[in-house]
Amino acid sequence: MLMKTPAQSLTEQLAVRFADRIRSRLLPPGARLPSVRQCAEQHGVSPSTVVAAYDQLLAQGLVDARKNRGFFVRELATPRAAEGPRSSVAGRAAAAGASPINATALIRGMFHKVSNKPQPGMGVFPPDWLEATFMPAAVRKVTGTRALHDFSLQYGEPLGDSGLRRVLSQKLATLNIHAEADHIITTVGATHALDIVSRTLLRAGDPVMVEEPGWAVEFARLAALGMRILPVPRRADGPDLEVMAKYCELHQPKLYVSVSVFHNPTGYCLSPGSAHRLLQLANRHNFHIVEDDTYSHLAPAHATRLSALDGLRRTIYVSGFAKILAPNWRIGYLAAPPGLVEPLLDTKLLSTLTTPALLERALALCIEQGQLRRHAERIRTRLDAARARSVKLALAAGCTFAAEPVGLFGWVDTGVDTDAMAQRMLDEGYLIAPGALFHAARVPSTLMRINFATTQDAAFWRVFARVRAGG
Amino acid sequence: MLMKTPAQSLTEQLAVRFADRIRSRLLPPGARLPSVRQCAEQHGVSPSTVVAAYDQLLAQGLVDARKNRGFFVRELATPRAAEGPRSSVAGRAAAAGASPINATALIRGMFHKVSNKPQPGMGVFPPDWLEATFMPAAVRKVTGTRALHDFSLQYGEPLGDSGLRRVLSQKLATLNIHAEADHIITTVGATHALDIVSRTLLRAGDPVMVEEPGWAVEFARLAALGMRILPVPRRADGPDLEVMAKYCELHQPKLYVSVSVFHNPTGYCLSPGSAHRLLQLANRHNFHIVEDDTYSHLAPAHATRLSALDGLRRTIYVSGFAKILAPNWRIGYLAAPPGLVEPLLDTKLLSTLTTPALLERALALCIEQGQLRRHAERIRTRLDAARARSVKLALAAGCTFAAEPVGLFGWVDTGVDTDAMAQRMLDEGYLIAPGALFHAARVPSTLMRINFATTQDAAFWRVFARVRAGG
Repeated sequence: MLMKTPAQSLTEQLAVRFADRIRSRLLPPGARLPSVRQCAEQHGVSPSTVVAAYDQLLAQGLVDARKNRGFFVRELATPRAAEGPRSSVAGRAAAAGASPINATALIRGMFHKVSNKPQPGMGVFPPDWLEATFMPAAVRKVTGTRALHDFSLQYGEPLGDSGLRRVLSQKLATLNIHAEADHIITTVGATHALDIVSRTLLRAGDPVMVEEPGWAVEFARLAALGMRILPVPRRADGPDLEVMAKYCELHQPKLYVSVSVFHNPTGYCLSPGSAHRLLQLANRHNFHIVEDDTYSHLAPAHATRLSALDGLRRTIYVSGFAKILAPNWRIGYLAAPPGLVEPLLDTKLLSTLTTPALLERALALCIEQGQLRRHAERIRTRLDAARARSVKLALAAGCTFAAEPVGLFGWVDTGVDTDAMAQRMLDEGYLIAPGALFHAARVPSTLMRINFATTQDAAFWRVFARVRAGG
Repeated sequence: MLMKTPAQSLTEQLAVRFADRIRSRLLPPGARLPSVRQCAEQHGVSPSTVVAAYDQLLAQGLVDARKNRGFFVRELATPRAAEGPRSSVAGRAAAAGASPINATALIRGMFHKVSNKPQPGMGVFPPDWLEATFMPAAVRKVTGTRALHDFSLQYGEPLGDSGLRRVLSQKLATLNIHAEADHIITTVGATHALDIVSRTLLRAGDPVMVEEPGWAVEFARLAALGMRILPVPRRADGPDLEVMAKYCELHQPKLYVSVSVFHNPTGYCLSPGSAHRLLQLANRHNFHIVEDDTYSHLAPAHATRLSALDGLRRTIYVSGFAKILAPNWRIGYLAAPPGLVEPLLDTKLLSTLTTPALLERALALCIEQGQLRRHAERIRTRLDAARARSVKLALAAGCTFAAEPVGLFGWVDTGVDTDAMAQRMLDEGYLIAPGALFHAARVPSTLMRINFATTQDAAFWRVFARVRAGG
């Protein structure tokens, strides 16, 4: 509820709140603002205050009024002939369909500080979970004057810091993935690794298979690169192989993008049998698989990875450290079949030249000394406890789980449209991740993804239950 | 000349030397090895030793023998039906034409330690030029325990560290480029900034104007993205506007990529008149310009920038710090018209999410305290002296300058084919940058780009003169 202050009238406060949300795309282009009556009720103000606030948004060019239909968020870059080249950008966005805008709305949301409350829609652990004394120690060691110069004053190794790649090669061996250090390429986070793989193996217009539900950023990137997205339903034990086989016959896709372990958003893990049949299909139809193992550090021992079964022949393994150590260090990597290392490295060089060795070497130290492994163990224990509490609270709030609750994320059925819920919850200071965002083509959904680390407090679920009940 | 050692026969040494060069692409796919006789003379070994070495390369699959024509470096990923998806990569490379492979050969060369000698083909200052005590101090300050966590444990600001962006905004103002901090986006080096701009403004198949001669990595990236490259001859005062006007009428290109100040490889600086007419053309034909100001820190005061004249309306300004401070920190940035910030930021998020704030904040400190400015002054003074010496030596070696020697690079006419020279100079432990690499379609050239910081020693020019004379 809004409170009148000497500095800002209720109208201004309301206008600023909507303007912020539009600019950060939490209210995406094309979205409809609540009706004047709804909005007045919701914020405890008079209808005339709402009308005045909407008028301000109109004057700022942030919304359009459509006769008898209400107010709608304006498209960001409306094609206007007089405006020149900008129109081509808008044209592109339109051509690529609505999904990129919706997906980037989620990403923006991830970075937009909604409030100081724990955020159920976030994709990472809260910062206080990641605090550790070994990290500053490793960085101090690598930033001694001499070492700092060594790691700064030349472009560095194209494949990435050799110290880190050696350690990663050993780490992968413990997962039964055998990659020499020279077949590993470090990247600016796993995101960059996935980007490098798609740019190397695909050209604009190529068909590519993705999991649905799946990670919205991957859909958005592939769409922005002009790829044709073929969504494959993800089941509890793996992808729907019948759908894949049909796609292969009709479209001959060259790549399948997949999270085998703790799939986002469902938490599903690939079964060994499903992995085997999937690799057979890939052999028969001659496509590559990029295996995104972002949640590797949370994974149970002996989880099935395609890269291990396949021996990195037609799989490319991708992982990173944003989920366990330091999201902002942006360190990811890929391990590739020997024949693909050169073309993938070319794409890395063309996109960023090299990557910062200083942080890579500090990470290598953290892994080498066993500190990261122990840190991950502590976080898994803490996550298990948080998950148990979150599950209890979610069930008590009348939600059900669409998938067995494991890993970092819960895939929760709320029974109501979560797109609408997301807007109402924002007013309460909570960012939630509606199910629609995990689909290649945005469809209404009653599902939402929760982060178990940030949903273990009863306060959130009380607000959630109240809002869902329309209160 | 090779020397027999107990550990390695002459045959093995010769085979290893060629294998290294093929793997690092200093000998690109399709290149012809020297004839047996030539090679024997050049390395002071018997023809049978050369034959044995070439046989080893053949057995390793690195070269092909063509009847009566000699030995040729094998294409890296020869399409072989049985091999499966790899063939699609080779197909792409072939479809994109020869230029990406040649350009990446240069980049690989930049990273391949040829010898301990100063390398005339390098694009950066030698590491000892860049050493500075203020850099470790700034890093230490930013990596204190508390600060390290603040800069590590969350994804960070999408646009980049706000401290750095504020400082950059002030720095740009001194160049008469007025960009608010919120219209600046930090990137993984200037390379990433250029990549973000082309991915945001262009789609595969779009025509794009580039300067010729120009920076090979830019050609290679645009080709890899599937763009149609329209090379515009670069004159001493600016681009050939007649050629540009013709391209505009025939192809309606959406973007022109340009280095205004200390153009690479010629060192040319855009004249104010040429800048004005170029912007008029851009207005008339409705294209964007990305201005790559990579050599900004070496530039003379009052150098003309398009972004200053245009007021960042249809220009996007790009720069970075690899040439002056820390190549491996990979910090670059772009300043964009307000209407383009959002789509450019989306592309950044899709390609790397965020960028490492720890290094960005350390850089901000170095700029804020005036240390970078003084460091740049010292380097400019040192470069002036090195340039004077290099120019004298080049002229004494019988070379002429195809462009007035200014900035970091000299554009030198050697009078002989520099592609062939490059291979011979490698045998002597020197990497040179042949003129052919700076053209969109590789053509034989007698020009080469030299780095004034690494060509001030008489030793290089003596070897150069001897090799050119065929000795």
